[in-house]
Amino acid sequence: MSATSLIKELREQVARLHAELPRNELVVWTAGNVSARVPGEDLLVIKPSGVRYEDITPDNMVVTDLEGNLVEGDLSPSSDTAAHAYVYKHMPEVGGVVHTHSTYATAWSARGEAIPCVLTMIADEFGGEIPVGPFALIGDDSIGRGIVATLRGHRSPAVLMRNHGVFTIGRNAGAAVKAAVMCEDVARTVHISRQIGEPVPIAQADIDSLYARYQNVYGQEPAK
Amino acid sequence: MSATSLIKELREQVARLHAELPRNELVVWTAGNVSARVPGEDLLVIKPSGVRYEDITPDNMVVTDLEGNLVEGDLSPSSDTAAHAYVYKHMPEVGGVVHTHSTYATAWSARGEAIPCVLTMIADEFGGEIPVGPFALIGDDSIGRGIVATLRGHRSPAVLMRNHGVFTIGRNAGAAVKAAVMCEDVARTVHISRQIGEPVPIAQADIDSLYARYQNVYGQEPAK
Amino acid sequence: MSATSLIKELREQVARLHAELPRNELVVWTAGNVSARVPGEDLLVIKPSGVRYEDITPDNMVVTDLEGNLVEGDLSPSSDTAAHAYVYKHMPEVGGVVHTHSTYATAWSARGEAIPCVLTMIADEFGGEIPVGPFALIGDDSIGRGIVATLRGHRSPAVLMRNHGVFTIGRNAGAAVKAAVMCEDVARTVHISRQIGEPVPIAQADIDSLYARYQNVYGQEPAK
Amino acid sequence: MSATSLIKELREQVARLHAELPRNELVVWTAGNVSARVPGEDLLVIKPSGVRYEDITPDNMVVTDLEGNLVEGDLSPSSDTAAHAYVYKHMPEVGGVVHTHSTYATAWSARGEAIPCVLTMIADEFGGEIPVGPFALIGDDSIGRGIVATLRGHRSPAVLMRNHGVFTIGRNAGAAVKAAVMCEDVARTVHISRQIGEPVPIAQADIDSLYARYQNVYGQEPAK
Repeated sequence: MSATSLIKELREQVARLHAELPRNELVVWTAGNVSARVPGEDLLVIKPSGVRYEDITPDNMVVTDLEGNLVEGDLSPSSDTAAHAYVYKHMPEVGGVVHTHSTYATAWSARGEAIPCVLTMIADEFGGEIPVGPFALIGDDSIGRGIVATLRGHRSPAVLMRNHGVFTIGRNAGAAVKAAVMCEDVARTVHISRQIGEPVPIAQADIDSLYARYQNVYGQEPAK
Repeated sequence: MSATSLIKELREQVARLHAELPRNELVVWTAGNVSARVPGEDLLVIKPSGVRYEDITPDNMVVTDLEGNLVEGDLSPSSDTAAHAYVYKHMPEVGGVVHTHSTYATAWSARGEAIPCVLTMIADEFGGEIPVGPFALIGDDSIGRGIVATLRGHRSPAVLMRNHGVFTIGRNAGAAVKAAVMCEDVARTVHISRQIGEPVPIAQADIDSLYARYQNVYGQEPAK
Repeated sequence: MSATSLIKELREQVARLHAELPRNELVVWTAGNVSARVPGEDLLVIKPSGVRYEDITPDNMVVTDLEGNLVEGDLSPSSDTAAHAYVYKHMPEVGGVVHTHSTYATAWSARGEAIPCVLTMIADEFGGEIPVGPFALIGDDSIGRGIVATLRGHRSPAVLMRNHGVFTIGRNAGAAVKAAVMCEDVARTVHISRQIGEPVPIAQADIDSLYARYQNVYGQEPAK
Repeated sequence: MSATSLIKELREQVARLHAELPRNELVVWTAGNVSARVPGEDLLVIKPSGVRYEDITPDNMVVTDLEGNLVEGDLSPSSDTAAHAYVYKHMPEVGGVVHTHSTYATAWSARGEAIPCVLTMIADEFGGEIPVGPFALIGDDSIGRGIVATLRGHRSPAVLMRNHGVFTIGRNAGAAVKAAVMCEDVARTVHISRQIGEPVPIAQADIDSLYARYQNVYGQEPAK
């Protein structure tokens, strides 16, 4: 497929996936964004800055290089583009990145506290606890560096950036969106469980067994 | 009715009942499933694995035997099929099974704590506390065994499987879905009540009286 | 207006008002019901038992006398009819009654704890705290007696029946529905406020002043 | 543009913005209102009193002077008009005002507690903590005075009026609505974070840096 038709397809996919964010109650107003790597090119497709979800179309998605510079599009790229770009540049296996301020996950991030692996669903999808990344200011590559430093070599596709929100990665943008939905769901369930007592831990051997099965056999095709 | 037309009808019913799960906020993404026994046959109808709720149709529901082996359908059965099958095999009175990770019920399950009978609605529908089942790995019949060991001889049609989620049973799939909706509703209300104090217990004689009435006279026909 | 055309109009009104219950997230499944007195007759219009909200129509509403006996309709009246009927019989100023198990209000009721008047909105609508009524079994007039004993002479149009749920009253069914919506809203806000500290009390003179103004000048016509 | 066509346009804008309130779950029933200043005139456009959200149209919006006296319209202005009018009269830079009883923000207000700046999103939009205003009775200009006394010279466009609810301001009505949505979102996230521990503070220099960037470079044009 040519780069042009690939980008056209990814514009549609990224625009469509943004609808999952409000639908799964992961965002309010314009906060939150999804991007996809353009395979074989040093490019990514991402939401423009400050555009509301109901106004998102394939045509107003923008294309940038892996420094976050605008390559194609009429609007400024999301102010989080530098973080997305840094991840694609330093984690070649990543094809999609999602950023949200989803309520429960962000509440854990504000305390700087990892989400413990006390549900089989966490073991399945995240393979252990969901880790916390450093506090970082927006504007340079410090958010990107914090994401990569935390997720490289980690089973979890999600990181709770301290006092900020969530970034998730995936082999494509759809997988990163799924991780963002699951992250908020387990952040909420474990929070609620801890409100009136202590969840029972799951043994490490059971976590490993659940993770191995889910990554290999779940769904109609391998999940990763 | 022939087995063929019975299966056709159950495919429609099971597909339609899956819509109740997201509608009542019991599931996110693809988690959660409904099944129905095919009366008079050692068969069940269930959701395929990894299919999203908006893509569920009567045609993509699958049929398995009571070992969980695929009998009819183009997709792999839900990864929870073995648990459903085990229940049908060992509890002949059960005609429907539902599995969810609904938030509040799962939060109780993560603490391994039964939901106490402190609401008339719990007495009505569950006849007492909603019990906790054992921790069990997915992949063999250990989840099924845990459900049956907990619910056999128990008034409650719902069990909180530890660190995992909820299974409910009913005389048909609709009754099991109703139990799943009620279970989450009371899990939430009792959780919230306990957040800032202790709910007042209901006397056992009152629980028995509420349960007896509801099972016999509620609705336009007997509820069970 | 003749009794016949009055009943026709009330069937439409009561059916339409039931839609406010799920819309305002006050009920799940079939729990919860609205009724209206037929002015000038010893009759009331109410929801039938066990019918789901999407299946409610003016035609399947039922009419009973003030003992709860079916007078008109093909289905059994709600199992809460005796409580509604008792209220109409003993509180002639009441034209509408609503019953729900709305989550936060029911959570307060499970602790047997009144909702304190710590919001101007509570002073406006309820004129002080929202009181708790006694524990009562369904099936005779004990729920109705508990409601009347609590609300007669009280400013509040809502009572939290212990371990059960909420009943609200109004000069008509619409006012009772509004009270049910407001009751859940303030039950939730005060609950959340109390989770991490103590709300500041409002002085009794200010409560009286807010209540007097709201009952007299709010809206396009007097609220009562 | 003539005052007449300006008012026509603002009626449409204010009517349309009211739909954001229920959509973002900031209001129940008729509580909550949006107003806009008529630039160059001592007039404002606001919701009428006691009208439900689904019945709001450009035509039933009302116009008042900056004392809250009705100038144009068939219905009584919102009972909160005096507070809106006072703000426009004393803060000439304000073009829009919003009032809600949104759940989490109101819960903080009931405790008389400011929302601490522990999220980058709070630093971005509010520039520091969201402050508490005084308790004030409705009916004279005491609510308006409390808002102005709290927000004048403050970075935050939102004030938590004690035991009451939220008022937000903006350069236009859209910006005030955005502030109301953001205020509830961060009120909820910080509340949840604090339920089971203490959020990590953000250093003042980082707050200042985030605020400066967001006010200057975010979106497709300056946010203020």
